[in-house]
Amino acid sequence: MQHLETYRQEVENQINQLQLSNNPPELYEPIRYLLANGGKRIRPLLSMLSCQLFGKPGLSALHAGVAVELFHNFTLIHDDIMDKAPLRRGKTAVHIKWSENSALLSGDTLFVVAYKELLKQEAHFLSALIPVFSKTAQEVCEGQQMDMDFETRDEVSIDEYIEMIRLKTAVLLAGALEMGAIIGDANAKNREHIYRFGEHIGIAFQLQDDLLDVYADSKTFGKQVGGDIIANKKTFLLLKAKELSNSEQSAAFVKLEHENNHEVKVSRTKELFEQLGVKALAKEEMNRHFQLSLKHLSQIEVSDESKQPLKVLAHMLMDREQ
Amino acid sequence: MQHLETYRQEVENQINQLQLSNNPPELYEPIRYLLANGGKRIRPLLSMLSCQLFGKPGLSALHAGVAVELFHNFTLIHDDIMDKAPLRRGKTAVHIKWSENSALLSGDTLFVVAYKELLKQEAHFLSALIPVFSKTAQEVCEGQQMDMDFETRDEVSIDEYIEMIRLKTAVLLAGALEMGAIIGDANAKNREHIYRFGEHIGIAFQLQDDLLDVYADSKTFGKQVGGDIIANKKTFLLLKAKELSNSEQSAAFVKLEHENNHEVKVSRTKELFEQLGVKALAKEEMNRHFQLSLKHLSQIEVSDESKQPLKVLAHMLMDREQ
Repeated sequence: MQHLETYRQEVENQINQLQLSNNPPELYEPIRYLLANGGKRIRPLLSMLSCQLFGKPGLSALHAGVAVELFHNFTLIHDDIMDKAPLRRGKTAVHIKWSENSALLSGDTLFVVAYKELLKQEAHFLSALIPVFSKTAQEVCEGQQMDMDFETRDEVSIDEYIEMIRLKTAVLLAGALEMGAIIGDANAKNREHIYRFGEHIGIAFQLQDDLLDVYADSKTFGKQVGGDIIANKKTFLLLKAKELSNSEQSAAFVKLEHENNHEVKVSRTKELFEQLGVKALAKEEMNRHFQLSLKHLSQIEVSDESKQPLKVLAHMLMDREQ
Repeated sequence: MQHLETYRQEVENQINQLQLSNNPPELYEPIRYLLANGGKRIRPLLSMLSCQLFGKPGLSALHAGVAVELFHNFTLIHDDIMDKAPLRRGKTAVHIKWSENSALLSGDTLFVVAYKELLKQEAHFLSALIPVFSKTAQEVCEGQQMDMDFETRDEVSIDEYIEMIRLKTAVLLAGALEMGAIIGDANAKNREHIYRFGEHIGIAFQLQDDLLDVYADSKTFGKQVGGDIIANKKTFLLLKAKELSNSEQSAAFVKLEHENNHEVKVSRTKELFEQLGVKALAKEEMNRHFQLSLKHLSQIEVSDESKQPLKVLAHMLMDREQ
């Protein structure tokens, strides 16, 4: 996968070369700080591999991909304010290191910078690219709002949960791919398939996140194992478990919500998950979406060989331990 | 000025017709609430009058103008979070009526909606319009950050203050006008003049705001007279007064910062302003910018007659009591 590393390097170069002003420093330092703190740059890689899939150089989609990456980082700044998250990628979150106001306004600015980056694509693509970008951005906001709403709701269905992760996580991968396809001059049918490929990969990716949070090896996992359980987060596992619970198990879940001993809370919740078999059900749902994504990739009318890089990236995404 | 009322009605219609989703309600209700709460719609009127100035129907610039208005409302939502403002246009601010998180995310969404509105302009204008829109948006963020920085700084120069209000207030009027000029197919020189017209009007407008805050008739003024003084806000009046103060007057200002009796604080500050003659100096600076704006308008190469509507609007803006 030499392409991947070359592409990733181009993304880093492009981000490093952003002509960000120095003034006011409180506005631009937080942006530089977050962007310098890496991330895997998955989204621009998807744009470039999608463009390449349709026979154009992947680098032709660099600016669109970087725009998505900048937008993604903007959402991280604002999400961390809303979630009161202390850390991001192992470092102090922007709203703590500076202030909530600086984080709010730096985020807004980064959002503009993302649109400006997109504008660097050739003019004749813009009337197709910007609507995809804007629609995706709006959906990501909707997903984040749903996620916050779920915190205070008693009942959330599995369908609602899947719709939330589709909006909050999956559509941005799908949008990155679709924008690459637009620049690669893909036809409408192929654009639709590459979008669905990304959507299902995104849902599978988030379900894997839910699983890792509970079942990852604490030695290699970058975060606290059981963090979602401790925070009473309504993940697929918890929602499915509650759906399948008898009255005794339901009562146990209600009691566990208020359990202050984290170790006890995590181990008892895992016992209930075990009884109800939800780990297997989550894996099944994850695999179902992963297979659906591969099916959409297979339906794209280009040679099998040219699909290889995206297939490899898809497997890499689903084969992580952190 | 029949045009003005017709245009304003078209702006209202366009805003009412925005196809905003209903879900999630926490995301879209705050947007509807703020947009329904009026405002004078100055910015879209500027876009339309500017377009008309160059011989095209003002309505051709409706979407660009409404995009600016939506962006303006987005900044109000976020500014009110940052300033902890309880009221906006006489009604409960969004972050109080809902929550800070809802206000943050509704704001983000409204920003996307603004870009989407701009995209409704004819495709061949977009590569000129979007850069103006994005540059302006970024500058407004810079202005807001400067304004926040000033709160905690001991020394702020008059030049810095003017630069702050230029960015925070004036460039958005200028940008609205320039976008109208782009759609009106104005040449580069005329575009520059209409932009400068807006910039100077905006600065004059904000200086008038500073003056009204202290010297408005409390019977007709929509806000608390002396609000800026009570909040220790570094306005042109205060900065100029401090610049001109002798050591005794300087000491008096320092003491007044901590004065808890609002009535005493306002009246003593006004006495000092009187001694130092800063009201006249602020008026002079305001008039200087107003005259500069009219000069730029006069240099635009179209008939004097066609400049009349913009001239009338400019005078209306400078002739308010609230």
